Amino acid sequence: MVKVDLSGAEQFFTAAGPDYALAELAHKTLMNGSGLGADFIGWLELPRRIKETELQEILDTAKLIRSRSKALVVIGIGGSYLGARGAIELLRPIPGKDDPKVFFIGNGLSADALCDTLDMLGDVDFDVNVISKSGTTLEPAASFRIFRGLLEKKYGSKADEHIFATTDARKGVLKSVADRQGWKTFVVPDDVGGRFSVLSAVGLLPMAVAGIDVEKVIDCAIEEFKSLSVPSKENPAWQYAAARQSLYGKGYSVEILGCYEPSFRFMAEWWKQLYGESEGKDHKGIFPASVEFTADLHSMGQFIQEGPRNLMESIVRFTESRRAYIFPEDGENADGLNYLAGRDMADICRVAADAVKQAHISGGVPNIVIEVKKRDEAGFASLVCFFEMACAISGYMSGVNPFNQPGVEAYKKNMFRMLGKPGAM
Amino acid sequence: MVKVDLSGAEQFFTAAGPDYALAELAHKTLMNGSGLGADFIGWLELPRRIKETELQEILDTAKLIRSRSKALVVIGIGGSYLGARGAIELLRPIPGKDDPKVFFIGNGLSADALCDTLDMLGDVDFDVNVISKSGTTLEPAASFRIFRGLLEKKYGSKADEHIFATTDARKGVLKSVADRQGWKTFVVPDDVGGRFSVLSAVGLLPMAVAGIDVEKVIDCAIEEFKSLSVPSKENPAWQYAAARQSLYGKGYSVEILGCYEPSFRFMAEWWKQLYGESEGKDHKGIFPASVEFTADLHSMGQFIQEGPRNLMESIVRFTESRRAYIFPEDGENADGLNYLAGRDMADICRVAADAVKQAHISGGVPNIVIEVKKRDEAGFASLVCFFEMACAISGYMSGVNPFNQPGVEAYKKNMFRMLGKPGAM
Repeated sequence: MVKVDLSGAEQFFTAAGPDYALAELAHKTLMNGSGLGADFIGWLELPRRIKETELQEILDTAKLIRSRSKALVVIGIGGSYLGARGAIELLRPIPGKDDPKVFFIGNGLSADALCDTLDMLGDVDFDVNVISKSGTTLEPAASFRIFRGLLEKKYGSKADEHIFATTDARKGVLKSVADRQGWKTFVVPDDVGGRFSVLSAVGLLPMAVAGIDVEKVIDCAIEEFKSLSVPSKENPAWQYAAARQSLYGKGYSVEILGCYEPSFRFMAEWWKQLYGESEGKDHKGIFPASVEFTADLHSMGQFIQEGPRNLMESIVRFTESRRAYIFPEDGENADGLNYLAGRDMADICRVAADAVKQAHISGGVPNIVIEVKKRDEAGFASLVCFFEMACAISGYMSGVNPFNQPGVEAYKKNMFRMLGKPGAM
Repeated sequence: MVKVDLSGAEQFFTAAGPDYALAELAHKTLMNGSGLGADFIGWLELPRRIKETELQEILDTAKLIRSRSKALVVIGIGGSYLGARGAIELLRPIPGKDDPKVFFIGNGLSADALCDTLDMLGDVDFDVNVISKSGTTLEPAASFRIFRGLLEKKYGSKADEHIFATTDARKGVLKSVADRQGWKTFVVPDDVGGRFSVLSAVGLLPMAVAGIDVEKVIDCAIEEFKSLSVPSKENPAWQYAAARQSLYGKGYSVEILGCYEPSFRFMAEWWKQLYGESEGKDHKGIFPASVEFTADLHSMGQFIQEGPRNLMESIVRFTESRRAYIFPEDGENADGLNYLAGRDMADICRVAADAVKQAHISGGVPNIVIEVKKRDEAGFASLVCFFEMACAISGYMSGVNPFNQPGVEAYKKNMFRMLGKPGAM
């Protein structure tokens, strides 16, 4: 389970400190489904539900794809993309010998990126997982038409067997074409928004194909949500939500999520969507940004240390590294680093993280540490459940509906009109 | 040359508008070397200087490495890393058949990332380019010890021939070891800070190894700096600097740099260091963040459209794409996308970008467009020169020394003490 350490934030809180009474109320409102957007809290049940329904099919499909294909092309945008990419980069940063390569496309409109992906794919055997609730979002729909064409050229009448559609259970363009063509389908649940969907087939199928043990992810997530449902000041989701709202109330309006593992980069992107889209509305919200440490200490480090004092930082720390690397002795010691010899690099990194924490607190930056044991399936599940739960609580505490995203329509409306889509205005 | 379009920002400026008189003064102060930190404005001369000195050696070395090695391990952090990585991902997102793979390491302390890189490197022939002015920065020094050991194990007495050190011209640990061992060295100039060093050997050697035409980059940069030195309201560096300072004065304190090319991701990281480290001091500065469009319209898009109104956005647009991709017709048109058939994806993307611009302006987000012709060597050179020049002007306009980074020492000091470095306190 995740542990939240607020010791580096306390001195920056409002006089009253984090409002645990409000966190309790928000948590209760969430759990009993009486809050804003309560039609979209299915994610709380997702791990249990998926275990009883699609999990075995996901495993079987992943096995099939792994046995016959060298690549999986995942077509999706936003919540239909970031979770799986975050998970795969975190847990399988280097594909194993038998792992298909996973390409993410349909998350933009760059012609160059499309052509590059086609080049990288080459002429290997591949499958496509198209992920779209409606099938009408432009970016994935456009890419899917292209890759479906490619499959038809490559596999002829067998192309349909290489398409897996994760979409609405009953309605929508994608669902109806899938049914007619006989594509295997998985479900984007009605009561789960995209940014909360990583523990559905949306995230799990690409993850399983990449070699992640998704059964373990789900089993851990079930336990995690159980713990996180307990009303208590010891609940890490309360702690994180209440702390950041206290800091926000004091004028800390930018939150930097940092991690000392470069493989965390796209988990931070997933987190940005989760928090940015849930809280950034009604002209409110904490701006979510991310850094990779220690790299960015030599980039954003100056700004964090001495820029405007409206930054808070939340650091994800894995207490155990996957592998040990003992720093070598050097007879000559020209670089003067023998004082580190014989120590595990992971320990050196831990000391550095403590040093950074102290430096940033001295500089006036509230520091929250989010600790999880290991960069593995269990650690991933803990982080996902924790961040989702805390996000909902934090959103309710700030008075917004954390489950809608009305602002995403604005560009789409303009775009469809300007592209001349029939019926658009 | 870069074109700046401020039409989407005008309605958000302070009443007086961008202060071109102040931009002119800042520019003049920069060009005549009378401002704060004037010991560090050598970057203005860098392209011309490098052409007369090291360029041929860089080309020869790159040729040697390309002919004998499958990989180049680049060891550096901050400014000794982000420029080359940004350039390579932008211009060579997929390595060509004959391109060595370029690995970036020594930019963090993760044991897992280190082990992963060692695994990916495998047992292919490789060279090392270690980049550090002093040789004492912990992250690159530690990695260098490890990879040097690897070279010695692999090549025995020939290991020295596989090490290329980009470092101080005369002094420092790395320089002295390099001289003793007979490593080929390149220069980190005294009058150029790390974040302004991409057009020195720091950036150029890895870029050349990756197959980028660095002669072309340098020739274009020479022209670019010539244009950018002309005092004029038409100078795009004045426009960008004056616009963002006007917006900052009106309370827009977060700047989002966006691009519709996924390959721009690490150029945005380079930009963050350039602006964050130059301006984030004395408790001032615009917080630099980045997004990838259209992907992040389904992530940060909600926040941008409806969150707190303290965001400005600057969008880098390439007016020509590298490759055309004509969107295909589909007889059946089940996805309803035939209205796009026959159009180049790049044109569709351009329309989307216009649509997003309108949507964000309507939502209250000042929009600056930074236009450059193509995602090629010339486009890269234009962007680098433009952003550097504008950064210096913007920094002077805001009253800070844009060329120092005193805040970076805080964590290092703590870290060395806590790690027990001899003599540290």
